[in-house]
Parts: sequence; C-alpha cells; structure tokens
Amino acid sequence: MNFETITTEQADGVLTITLNRPDRLNAFTRQMTEDLLAALDIADAEDAVRAVIVTGAGRGFCAGVDLDADDAFTEAKVDPASTDPQVWADPANRDWGGILALRLFRCLKPVIAAVNGPAVGIGATMQLPMDFRLASEAARFGFVFARRGIVPEAASSWFLPRLVGMSQALEWSYTGRVFGAEEALAGGLVRSVHAPDDLLPAARALAAEIAANTAPVSIALTRQMMWRMAGADHPMRAHQIDSRAIAARSASGDAREGVASFLEKRPPSFPDRVSQDMPGFFPWWHEPGWNEETNK
Amino acid sequence: MNFETITTEQADGVLTITLNRPDRLNAFTRQMTEDLLAALDIADAEDAVRAVIVTGAGRGFCAGVDLDADDAFTEAKVDPASTDPQVWADPANRDWGGILALRLFRCLKPVIAAVNGPAVGIGATMQLPMDFRLASEAARFGFVFARRGIVPEAASSWFLPRLVGMSQALEWSYTGRVFGAEEALAGGLVRSVHAPDDLLPAARALAAEIAANTAPVSIALTRQMMWRMAGADHPMRAHQIDSRAIAARSASGDAREGVASFLEKRPPSFPDRVSQDMPGFFPWWHEPGWNEETNK
Amino acid sequence: MNFETITTEQADGVLTITLNRPDRLNAFTRQMTEDLLAALDIADAEDAVRAVIVTGAGRGFCAGVDLDADDAFTEAKVDPASTDPQVWADPANRDWGGILALRLFRCLKPVIAAVNGPAVGIGATMQLPMDFRLASEAARFGFVFARRGIVPEAASSWFLPRLVGMSQALEWSYTGRVFGAEEALAGGLVRSVHAPDDLLPAARALAAEIAANTAPVSIALTRQMMWRMAGADHPMRAHQIDSRAIAARSASGDAREGVASFLEKRPPSFPDRVSQDMPGFFPWWHEPGWNEETNK
Repeated sequence: MNFETITTEQADGVLTITLNRPDRLNAFTRQMTEDLLAALDIADAEDAVRAVIVTGAGRGFCAGVDLDADDAFTEAKVDPASTDPQVWADPANRDWGGILALRLFRCLKPVIAAVNGPAVGIGATMQLPMDFRLASEAARFGFVFARRGIVPEAASSWFLPRLVGMSQALEWSYTGRVFGAEEALAGGLVRSVHAPDDLLPAARALAAEIAANTAPVSIALTRQMMWRMAGADHPMRAHQIDSRAIAARSASGDAREGVASFLEKRPPSFPDRVSQDMPGFFPWWHEPGWNEETNK
Repeated sequence: MNFETITTEQADGVLTITLNRPDRLNAFTRQMTEDLLAALDIADAEDAVRAVIVTGAGRGFCAGVDLDADDAFTEAKVDPASTDPQVWADPANRDWGGILALRLFRCLKPVIAAVNGPAVGIGATMQLPMDFRLASEAARFGFVFARRGIVPEAASSWFLPRLVGMSQALEWSYTGRVFGAEEALAGGLVRSVHAPDDLLPAARALAAEIAANTAPVSIALTRQMMWRMAGADHPMRAHQIDSRAIAARSASGDAREGVASFLEKRPPSFPDRVSQDMPGFFPWWHEPGWNEETNK
Repeated sequence: MNFETITTEQADGVLTITLNRPDRLNAFTRQMTEDLLAALDIADAEDAVRAVIVTGAGRGFCAGVDLDADDAFTEAKVDPASTDPQVWADPANRDWGGILALRLFRCLKPVIAAVNGPAVGIGATMQLPMDFRLASEAARFGFVFARRGIVPEAASSWFLPRLVGMSQALEWSYTGRVFGAEEALAGGLVRSVHAPDDLLPAARALAAEIAANTAPVSIALTRQMMWRMAGADHPMRAHQIDSRAIAARSASGDAREGVASFLEKRPPSFPDRVSQDMPGFFPWWHEPGWNEETNK
C-alpha cells in the first residue's frame, strides 16, 4: 500500500487515509483521485476495516485542485459541446471529483472526514458523500467555484442541499465565501468541532462506537440503503429492499448471534463478513451511467 | 372496536390508539400490525376523527419486535434469494413494519406520536411516517438493528434521513445507540419534549389546534400532497396536482364558507366530509408495488 | 418598465421588485402574476442585473389572493373533474401561484425575499422558490389554506418540506397558524431577522456579497444545478451535468480570469455574459409539463 499522494494506516479496525502533499496544502491531483479510489477498494475488501477516516497531513486538509500540477484540469480535454453519449461515458472525459464522490457513495464502510485545516473547492466537496464531517477549530471551508469562473462539482449540487438545506447551500456556493468551523457547524455542514489535538481521537472514538457491538454486513447494507433511498421517489422502494434484507438477515448467523448476545447480556461476536456474506440480492440497484468496464 | 394488542378511545375529535401489552413494554407482534391497520382504517373512515394520537400503555412506548411471540419474524418464511416478483408482492413475505409504515403514509388524518417511554427498533421506526413526534422526558429511542445483526426496516431508510438529515440518520443507525429525549430533540427527531404528565395534554392541544378552524378535506389533501411530493423529481409534479386541487376546492362549499367566515370574523363551519367529499381526482397516484387485492 | 401592480428599480446590480398595492397589503391578483413574470424576464435578460430583491410597499409583504379583485380565482374556471391533459396543459386553467413558482425555479439570477410585513397564503408560498428569505421583525407568515377550505398551492407541497422539514411544514399547513419572524427563523423558513430599517440594507449586502468576485455565468449555472438536483434520484445525474459544465467552463475566458486574478491577488473581471455565453449544453433538462407555446 504505497501511494504517491496519500498514506494509509490500518489500526484498531480503522483505515486512516491521509492526504499527503503537505507542501501544497494537499492540493488535489489526478493521481490523488486514483490513489483514493485504490484505498477505498482496500477499505471495502478488507474485513478488518470497520471504518475509514480521511484527514490531511500538515496544516491543511485539501486546498482544491493543484493548478500547478501537470495533470490539472484547467483546460477541457474534450469538446464541451459534444452530445455524443460515448464521450461522457468515458471516465477520462468526466469530472474526477465526481468519480471520487460516486465511489464514496458506493462505499461499504462508514467514512469519517477529520477536517484538520483549510478545505477548499474539491477539498470541501469531496467530503459531502462521506458520512460524517468532524472539524478542527482550525478548519476552513470554501465552495469557491464561482470565484474561479467554474461551477460546483463532485456531484455537490446533489449532496450539499441535502446536507445543509437549499438556502445555505446556495449562499455558500453563490458567495464563494471561505468560512470557519463554527459557521460550518451552525450551517449543518459538520457534526462537531474539536480542538486540533482532539480531532483524530474524536474521529476514532466515533469509529469505535460504530464498530462496537454491530454486525459489519448490517452496517454495509445500512449505508447503501440510506444513501440510495435519499433519491427514491416513494417509501415503497425502501420497503421492497427492506423485505428482502429482513428476510435474508433474519435467517443469518448474525441475527441468531445478535439476539442471543442481547438476551445473554454479553458482547456479540458476529460471524458474517462483508467480503463474502452480503445477501444474494446485493447489489440491488441499476446504477445509472456507471461504466462497468472501468468501474467508474 | 375490541383489539387484542391495542386499545382505542375516541373523544373530542381525536382517536387515541394505545399500544397495550404493558407487561412486554408493548413489544410488537404480527397481531399488533393487524390491529394498527384496522384502527387506522377506522380513523380514516370516521368523519368525527380529526387527528390520531399513538401512545403506549405503562412505562414503555414499544420495545421492538417481541422475540418471544409465536409469530415473531426471527426466521425467514421465504427464500431471501428469490427474485420472483410474485414472492415479494405477497404481503405475507414482506416486512410488517413497512406495511404499517406505508399505511401510515396513506393516512388521511394527522397522526401524532406521543412517546411516553422506550421506543426501540420498530418502536422507533414506526413513528417516522407519523406527522409529529412529541416525547416525554422519559422517552428513549434506539435504531438498534445493526446490534441485532439485521437492518433498519419499516422503510426507515427513506423516512429517517428526510427527517433528521443523512449524517444524523447514519450515526443513530450505525451505532445502534439508545438515546434520550434531549438527543432526539437536538437531532430533529422529535418536535418537543414534555414532562411525563404533560405529554398527552400537549398532543391533544396540537390535535385541537389542527382541528380548529380548518376544513377536514383540506387537511386530508394537504397530508397526501406534502408526503407524496417529498419524493417527486420536480415542482411541476406538485403544480399539476395543485391546479386540480385548487380548481376543485375553490368550487367547494368549504371554500365559500372559508371566505365567508373569514370576512365575517367568525369560526367556520365546513360542510365537506372526508368520507364522501374528496375531489374526483383523488387519489391521483399510481402506488408502486401496492397490492390492491390485500390493500397492503 | 411600467407595471400596474409592482414597481421595479435597478441599481448597483440589483433589480428590486416591490409589490405595490399598499392599500390592499399588496394582495395578489392575476395581473400581479403577469407583472412578476415580466419583471423576472427582465432580470434574466439584463446582464447588469446580478440579483433580484422582492419586497412589499407599505406595511405588508403580500396578504394573499385579493378576494375582491375581478380576476380572483375564487371559483373554478374549469371542470375540476376533467381528466383531459389538454385542459391542464393550458396555463389559463392552472394555479397562477404555481406558474409564478415555476418561473422563479427557472430564474438565472439569485432571488432574495425581503419580507417587510404580513405574508399570507400566496404571499408566503411565493417566497419558497426564492433562494433566501430575510425577514423584518414585523414580518408575519401564514400558510392559511386549510382555514379557507382550499389547499397549499404554488407547488409549496414540493418546496416547503424541503426547506423546513416535513413535520414543520405539516404543522404550519395543518394549523393555518399565523406566526412571527422568530418562529419562522427557529423553524428554518427564514435566513435572518432584521430591524425594519435594516431589512433592505441586509438584502442588498447579501446581493453585493454574491455579485462581488463571482462570475455571472457560474452563478446562473449553479442556481439551476442546485435547484434541479434537489429532485434527482441519484448523484450520477449531477455528475453527468458537472462533467459537461466543468469541461465547458474550464475552457472559458472566465476560468482563465478566475485563476489569473486569484494568483495575482486582484479582483476578477469576468468576460462572460449570461445573455449570450451560457454553455452549449444549457438548458440540459426536459421540463415535465412545461407549455413551450405560452412559456408557462
């Protein structure tokens, strides 16, 4: 697990991914996208990983796209006016931030952003498909796209209003204002604010609370059920999945252990593993526009 | 109106449904589902009922599925891997909590949960399609499914994130934590917290405020318009229903009385009844996956 | 720009639209719909307009439909039971408040409601598709439809629960209660509350913060991306638009100026204009039910 732009550390059931270009405030590059995608594949494949923490090395979280990088998307590689669906099905022509956001959306483990410092542009939008945002008092956020002449990306027009409400999403996106952790907390963007030294311990405590006494397959299913129903037109869509999931899980060794440990007032020891024991109907979705060939 | 697992009382325009297995903290059974479905049918059919209150007998609200009941769904009655749509169209094979949730979704009267004590598992998720949750200081909530090796049900993956936001929904569902009324209030799950003796009076006061001076048919339409547009892809869907509803209701005796009483500064006396005066375009929806034969 | 029922003033990049029937608390008429549609067309067409403020003359914002007006929709002009799609495609038969709401939804400039006084019925619902609601301490709000025997209109069943949550939306709509600015703030309906004399300055300050240092075409795209993705079933829908928008905007003069001004630490001077420089893929949507002929 050697990456160019990130480091990873696995301990106590948590895979910590650290954006690691500290001399550039961890500015985002195409290589960083690839490294993050690979690290998330590891998180999903390794049963020992119960949660993921994403943070930044040095004083920044992520300062946005690195405009000096050779691979910066500061000019179009494709005709923007193209109406050829093949052009837009090709991940090479698509917004990298969105490819990362959609991969986070598909993740099977809880993902916690530990925002240690400035998070601007893609540094802010990449956090939105993560499950929780914990912020250091030193964190700063900026949806600065309109100030750079571009637009919000990484599918943030879908995620941000769902997280903070339409008016707050628009105010931050229209003004491009850079704001601190307290405004982020008041606006509903972050779950909690911590002294800098308390940030990673708080993220690890949340990861530990999630891992304690819960079945990994239940968590993986819950993550996909909640995120995917956010866009569903009717609660019947949830009921149809619930019915299959309750039938499958009620018949599982996990459910027997869950009930037995509850009645015996002891910690459970769940047998099922995400790598091989997801129920037969999983995944249940047709992913619109997903490129099966490239898995992006 | 004699039920095995609940009691009902109709007074002052309110049907109060009390979960009534107090020695089991009102734990949920298949019979309780059937009893609640029947009571909601009465609530919708009786024009004297202007609102529904759901509460629990004794010190609990509902402690989740009764694992000791003969009819507990602790094992699958159906092959979970089945891909036969007929299997999943059969309500007998579907999640009972979801059948109850979808019936609440279709309700024509406002539904108020008065959460008097512990509400765990289906005891928590059954409240989500109710319009309001008022909590006693003694209330406790737990979305404990992952601790039992199963998954959130009762279409809660659709309802819970819409009520409390994605991050809060995930934190409660991932940890399975049991939490008190204050955390429920801070997280947006409950409308208000009351001293135990003030809980039912507060629920009745809200019901009375709703019934006072409003037209029953207007309330029934409003309930279905609001809940069903929560999943609609575009505001045009609302406009298309609004246009029919405004045309129909503007021509109604209720509208004439609403304007006249307003101009004459007196309380209105609305003639239209939910049992027979819903407009001709109602219901306007195609219910996905609804089983017309069983009405579930 | 002479209107019967409103006045408009353009200054400092802001088009201020003032509802102007002060002797009737600016009560809503069919003519007011037409005047507002025309004013919004001007706002979108004029590149000098960077934001729109909507307020009321005198002590009211808008007291709802004027029941005394000759053109009041107090009786149906169309058979409410009609199932003929042509009937409902005709804007003459549709809810005017919804036609205004859908026009606001399509707007290319940020829209700020400056609620100076009572805002009842359509006076309240017309604000929901505006981006921000700033309230005077003298503001009052009422979703009074059920008290008049009718139903919420102006697509408010789609907008209101998305802004304030389902339970709050239902409580205000079920009770028809008239409430003040503080309750509106606590419930998430308004962004901020101001002393009466500070209201318009605060609205202008927000408009100025939006206009400062941001590219107009970026703002117009952001507005449509955010509002339209609020109903999208999957974040892939956003990613597909983002990819086109990032490609188009990255190749624009605006993006070059945005980066250059950022690196040179000077205010940007963006060349692109909304009137002629929207990217080729804009508009990207198929509008369900929109009448192209009447543009309503």
